[in-house]
Amino acid sequence: MSENKKLPIGSVIGILGGGQLGRLLSISASQLGFKTHIFDPDPKAPAKQVTNLSSTFDYKDKRALENFANSVDVITFEFENIPVETIQICAELTSVFPNVNALSICQDRTNEKKFLNEMNIPSSPFVPAKSFQEILQSVHVLEPPLILKSSRFGYDGKGQKIIYSKEEIEGAASEFNDRPVILEKLIDFNLEISIIICRDMFGKIAVFDPAENLHENGILIESKVPASIPFSLASDAILIASKIVNALEYVGVMGIEFFVTKENKLLVNELAPRVHNSGHWTQSGCLINQFEQHIRAISGWPIGNGKRHSNVLMQNVLGSNVKLLDRNSNSSTNIYGKDDPKDGRKMGHKNYIR
Amino acid sequence: MSENKKLPIGSVIGILGGGQLGRLLSISASQLGFKTHIFDPDPKAPAKQVTNLSSTFDYKDKRALENFANSVDVITFEFENIPVETIQICAELTSVFPNVNALSICQDRTNEKKFLNEMNIPSSPFVPAKSFQEILQSVHVLEPPLILKSSRFGYDGKGQKIIYSKEEIEGAASEFNDRPVILEKLIDFNLEISIIICRDMFGKIAVFDPAENLHENGILIESKVPASIPFSLASDAILIASKIVNALEYVGVMGIEFFVTKENKLLVNELAPRVHNSGHWTQSGCLINQFEQHIRAISGWPIGNGKRHSNVLMQNVLGSNVKLLDRNSNSSTNIYGKDDPKDGRKMGHKNYIR
Repeated sequence: MSENKKLPIGSVIGILGGGQLGRLLSISASQLGFKTHIFDPDPKAPAKQVTNLSSTFDYKDKRALENFANSVDVITFEFENIPVETIQICAELTSVFPNVNALSICQDRTNEKKFLNEMNIPSSPFVPAKSFQEILQSVHVLEPPLILKSSRFGYDGKGQKIIYSKEEIEGAASEFNDRPVILEKLIDFNLEISIIICRDMFGKIAVFDPAENLHENGILIESKVPASIPFSLASDAILIASKIVNALEYVGVMGIEFFVTKENKLLVNELAPRVHNSGHWTQSGCLINQFEQHIRAISGWPIGNGKRHSNVLMQNVLGSNVKLLDRNSNSSTNIYGKDDPKDGRKMGHKNYIR
Repeated sequence: MSENKKLPIGSVIGILGGGQLGRLLSISASQLGFKTHIFDPDPKAPAKQVTNLSSTFDYKDKRALENFANSVDVITFEFENIPVETIQICAELTSVFPNVNALSICQDRTNEKKFLNEMNIPSSPFVPAKSFQEILQSVHVLEPPLILKSSRFGYDGKGQKIIYSKEEIEGAASEFNDRPVILEKLIDFNLEISIIICRDMFGKIAVFDPAENLHENGILIESKVPASIPFSLASDAILIASKIVNALEYVGVMGIEFFVTKENKLLVNELAPRVHNSGHWTQSGCLINQFEQHIRAISGWPIGNGKRHSNVLMQNVLGSNVKLLDRNSNSSTNIYGKDDPKDGRKMGHKNYIR
């Protein structure tokens, strides 16, 4: 991007990934007067319903990626499981935000943990393991209860297993089939919160108020603001979040999940280098929501201040519940345009002003 | 629409007209999980950027309209200058909201005035005229200052001329070239307000707070809520608005403009059978904005209650001002995706929370 970094109105924003986050990003980009181009191997990717520009190719199709990169003015992605090579191919031809370094750290739990450790940012104790043998040894380093997670490509609680005793480790380890894993101490937390933070390309940072999150089986059920935490904890979380995005020279919106322990200490649980489900409340609680904020950041436009005007409860609509959507009208409803309401699949969300 | 009138998620909403209002309606329909199909003779209509379904044919192309109507589940329109015949063709094949009767009244100022008169709803004194001769005679019925308006197809102050003296009438009348016109008493008002009202297909009504509007040369410059009017005036405006939508058995959002006279009396100035520029503030001031509200109404979903959570100032971005968009970030920005920033053309709008 040139010295004048502000992308002109009418520019095309390329989005890798056409799920609900790509769809909501595309809608916000349209609102700001940009065109969007969705790249996704799935011809029925929901985001392809909300723009007239899309590409349907594999994420490893170099030629298709080059055509895509040459036809857009900036590229972003909706999820952290995009192959790093995909981003590298695109980044040779146009600007990609967030940067590939942030992506490669955040898409691998072991890298992420090491990054946090190096920054002296507290997270749960962990042991990385590359093989069945290493997993078996790890259980002697950390006391159960533990949580065994595949190091890459996990989401919504997939690729995770809780281990309550040393005896369970062998059975659990075999499930992971010699994929790289990470064994973490299972945290007995009071509650979970998240920070949605944005850093623009000039280094300016804005945060939204911390959300209090409720998960079931690893899937987010609801988020509410304000979170029931003291102001001092919120400040600490915000400082940690800004330290992270600064260290990564990050551009765009990042979601950071924290545990608040029984001792009221913060532990970083996970970094998501993208807009985040726990930030959907900002659509109804802030003048500029997380999607508009991300598009502003990656297009060199000024970002919002994150100020919240209302108390909001966000509830996810999962699986076939989408068919039972009640007829009440006290929530703003978002449905993602997915065909197949599989169990636990995120089909939409509802925002209530409380 | 069947007994169970609620349109299923994934249904296709057809929108006649692909300007900014069609675009913003399409975006809200997407948010609710509907697909949209834009019908507009202009291949570059801005709304065609925000969906993958569009048709580019004349509004009088019967076959194209039939194909369109057969491929969607419900039809709405973004502006009142759609030919009545277009709606009639569509209405034979699928549901169209608002209904054709409301459209034909609202697209003709003379019909509109007569409708209001019959309902005993106050509006400015007027005389309809079908010819040059009738215009000349009208000036003897009403005392100048007057405003001469073409009866149909006027918008944003186009097709209007102010007449300060009887002597000016001849020159003015000749400009209108024997088109049907209406000669209205020019109202010396204190301020202009508008009501954005919604009626659903079950007869339920919801209104947004009245907005105070500022026009220049017939073009809306800004709207703000709350309007600086007493509560009693707001109530009267709301009662008039509900009387209008009930009488028309209207389904969807309607914008109604009022003058507040120097004597603090309300006069209806204009009915717009569609979402309205002076309701754009609802995007930042309400949980469910006027676009989501309209889509909910026409798809049989429950409508919002219109409650306002914040004070909002909406400013239009006109013509080449779109190029000068400042870098501040205290407003939520909407740009409409139009190529050509002609003088006075509505290119976007900004919402400020005050």
